[in-house]
Amino acid sequence: MKKINGGITAPKGFLAADTAAGIKYKDRRDMAMIYSEKPCKAAGTFTTNVVKAAPVKWDKKIVTESPFAQAVVVNAGIANAATGEEGYSCCKKTAQKTAELLNIPEDSVLVASTGVIGMPLPMDRICKGIEAMVPGLKNTRDAAHTAALAIMTTDTHEKEVSVQFEAGGATCTIGGMCKGSGMIHPNMCTMLSFITTDAAISKELLQEALSEDIVDTYNMISVDGDTSTNDTVLLLANGMAGNAEITEKNEDYQSFKEALNYINTTLAKEMAGDGEGATALFEVKVKGAETKEQARILSRAVVSSNLSKAAIYGHDANFGRFLCAMGYSGADFDPEKVDMFFESAAGKIQVIADGAAVDFDEDTATRILSEQVVTAIADIKMGNEEATAWGCDLTYDYIKINADYRS
Amino acid sequence: MKKINGGITAPKGFLAADTAAGIKYKDRRDMAMIYSEKPCKAAGTFTTNVVKAAPVKWDKKIVTESPFAQAVVVNAGIANAATGEEGYSCCKKTAQKTAELLNIPEDSVLVASTGVIGMPLPMDRICKGIEAMVPGLKNTRDAAHTAALAIMTTDTHEKEVSVQFEAGGATCTIGGMCKGSGMIHPNMCTMLSFITTDAAISKELLQEALSEDIVDTYNMISVDGDTSTNDTVLLLANGMAGNAEITEKNEDYQSFKEALNYINTTLAKEMAGDGEGATALFEVKVKGAETKEQARILSRAVVSSNLSKAAIYGHDANFGRFLCAMGYSGADFDPEKVDMFFESAAGKIQVIADGAAVDFDEDTATRILSEQVVTAIADIKMGNEEATAWGCDLTYDYIKINADYRS
Repeated sequence: MKKINGGITAPKGFLAADTAAGIKYKDRRDMAMIYSEKPCKAAGTFTTNVVKAAPVKWDKKIVTESPFAQAVVVNAGIANAATGEEGYSCCKKTAQKTAELLNIPEDSVLVASTGVIGMPLPMDRICKGIEAMVPGLKNTRDAAHTAALAIMTTDTHEKEVSVQFEAGGATCTIGGMCKGSGMIHPNMCTMLSFITTDAAISKELLQEALSEDIVDTYNMISVDGDTSTNDTVLLLANGMAGNAEITEKNEDYQSFKEALNYINTTLAKEMAGDGEGATALFEVKVKGAETKEQARILSRAVVSSNLSKAAIYGHDANFGRFLCAMGYSGADFDPEKVDMFFESAAGKIQVIADGAAVDFDEDTATRILSEQVVTAIADIKMGNEEATAWGCDLTYDYIKINADYRS
Repeated sequence: MKKINGGITAPKGFLAADTAAGIKYKDRRDMAMIYSEKPCKAAGTFTTNVVKAAPVKWDKKIVTESPFAQAVVVNAGIANAATGEEGYSCCKKTAQKTAELLNIPEDSVLVASTGVIGMPLPMDRICKGIEAMVPGLKNTRDAAHTAALAIMTTDTHEKEVSVQFEAGGATCTIGGMCKGSGMIHPNMCTMLSFITTDAAISKELLQEALSEDIVDTYNMISVDGDTSTNDTVLLLANGMAGNAEITEKNEDYQSFKEALNYINTTLAKEMAGDGEGATALFEVKVKGAETKEQARILSRAVVSSNLSKAAIYGHDANFGRFLCAMGYSGADFDPEKVDMFFESAAGKIQVIADGAAVDFDEDTATRILSEQVVTAIADIKMGNEEATAWGCDLTYDYIKINADYRS
C-alpha cells in the first residue's frame, strides 16, 4: 500500500466539480458533484438515528435496489432533514436533473446534504448548481480538492486522502473526501464521507468491507456526542483499474480492506481533530480488554466525556474524569486493576496504577497534554483486545459556534 | 402538604454543624455534619458507576447491614475516589472519630465526599474538623443553612427545601439539602443529597419510597452527561414526629411519598439549574409516549445533548437539534408524528408539526428562549405517558470551570 497525493479523482475514471450555488452560505462554493465514467458498484452506511434526513432515505434505496450508481450530488448549508415528503421529493428532483444532464438513469444518482435541520432546500438554486457543475466535471487533482472544500460546513480545512495497492494483476487506487465538524458521534456517522475506487470488486464484498470497517473508524470518533440525522458514507467502485474482479476473501480482498481502512481511519481522525472549536486531537486507547467491543465502549465513553474533553483543553491531567467515564460506560471492568497513561509527542507519563493515583510531575504532565495530539491509554488487564477512539477537546469556540449556528 | 422555610434541621431531633477544615478550599467552610438525637432508619441510593468512591462503598454497607444510622459526615474538595484501600480506611477512621465523640456506634456513621478524584483525604484535617463540629451541633435554621453552604463545590448557591405533611395522627416534616454543579448525570446520582425526616416509617418502605422516587427526580437531571463516582442520596428517618409508624402502603405512605417527591424534585431541579456555568434551567417534557420509560429516555437524550444545550445558551430555536437528539436516544418513535413547542414565562410557540418544520416568528422564539427557565415540549402521539428531564445550557463558563478544575 502506498500513500499518494490525491482525493476522489485519484482512481481512474472519476471526475469532480463544484460550484457556489448560494444555498445558504454566501461567497463560497457549497455544492459538489462526483461522476464516474463507468457505472459503479455502490456501498453505503448511514445514520442509525431514528430521524433520518431525506437524502439518507434516498441513498439507502439506491444502494440496495439500483443495479449501479454513477454520480453523487452534495450540498452544504441545509441538511434536508425534518422536511417531510417535500424533502424526499427534493432528492428525487436533484437526481432527475442530474440524470438528465449526464444522460444516466435517475436511480444511479446519489445525493447528500449537510447543514441546518428543518429548512427547505431551495430547489431552483440546487438545479442551477447542477447545471453549472456538469460541464465543469474534471478528472484533475484540483477538481477533487475544490470539491472537498465545497462540502465543508464548520470544518476549518478540507479532508482528503488517497492510496494505491496491488490486486489481481493491477494497481488499484482508492480516494476519499469527507466533512465533519459538529453533530459528530457517528453511529452508523453530519459527517459525510465519499470514497471512490477503480478496483473491480463484487457488490457484496464492497458493502461487507465498508460495513466492517466503519465500526473501528467513523464509529470510533466523537465531537459532541450528537449522532446526526444525515451521517452518510458512500463507497463507489467502477472497476476501471483492470484488476481481476475481487469476488472472494482472498489476498486481494485483504489488500483492498487494508487500503480502505487506511482511507477511513485517516478521514475519521481528521474529522475528530477538526471538531468544532477543537485545538487538539484527543485519542483514547483501551488495552487489555477481554473483547474488542468492551474496548470500543470504554474508549468511546472517555472520548465523549465533556469533562475529559474540557481537561484536555485545559492541559490538565485530571485522570479521575477519564476513569470516571470508563466507569459509567456500561462496560464491565475492575477499576482496581486499571493502569492509565498520557502520551504525546512530548513524552509519556503514568497517572494511575492498579486503580489508584500515582505521584507524577505536574509540569511534565502539562507539557504532554499541551500537544496537538494527546493520547490517553488505559490498560484494564483482562485480556488482549484493544480499541482506539478519537475526539477533540471541548473549547470556548465550540460554544461560540453552536450558540447561534443557524443565523 | 405544606412548604416550610427550612432544611435538614426542620424535622424534629436533627442537628447540623459545619466547619472550615481546610481540606482543599481556602477561606471557606468545607465540612458538614448531620446528627439525629435518636437512631434513624436509613435508606440510600448510590452511583451506578463501576468506579465507586470509597464513601459510596462504606455507606452501602451501613445502609444495608447496620441496624440504624445516626450521623453523616460530609467533606467538599476531595472525592476520596480512585484512592484504593487507603480511601476506604479513611471512611472508617472518619466514622470511628465521629462515633467516639458522639458516643454512638461506628457503624451508625455515614460519610460522603465530593471534589477531585484521585487525591488522598488529609485525615488529620478531617479529624480536626470532626472535633470542631461535634460541640457545634445545633437544631437551628441557621445550622442547616451553613451546612448546605459547606458541602458546595462549584455550586453558586446552597440548595435546601422542607415540607410538612400529616400522617398517623401527627405532623411530619421532611427536610433536605444537596450539592451538584458538575459531573452530573445521575444514574443512581457528584451530586450528594441528604434528606432528613421525623416520620416514623419502616426501613423497607423508606428504601422503597426513595428507590422509586429517584427515577423521576435525580435520575432525570443532567449537567454534562458524566455520571459521578460519588453520587449519593441518603434519607434518614428518626420517627420523632410521633406518628403511628408507616408499615404498609396506605394513605400515610402516599402522603410521605408525595412529600418526598416534592423534596427530591425541588432539589434535583435546583441542581440542574445551577449546573456549572449555567444561565438557564432547561426543561424537556416528552408527552404522548407509549411507556413512561420511553418518555424518560427521549427527554433525557435532549436535555443531555451538547448541541441542544448550546442552542439554549444562544436563545436559538434550533429545533432540529432537539429532534435529532430524540432520534439517537435509542427509544423508538415515529419522527413524522412529532409536534414540538418551546415554552417559557414569555410565551409558547410551535416549531414542528407532524415531524416537519412550521413557520414561526424568530423574534418571538428568541424572546421565549431568553428566559431563565426554558421548556421544550415534544408530543410523540403514541400514548398517554409522559416524563420530564432537567438540565442547563452549555456555556463558556462551563469550559472555564472545567478546563482547570484541579488547581
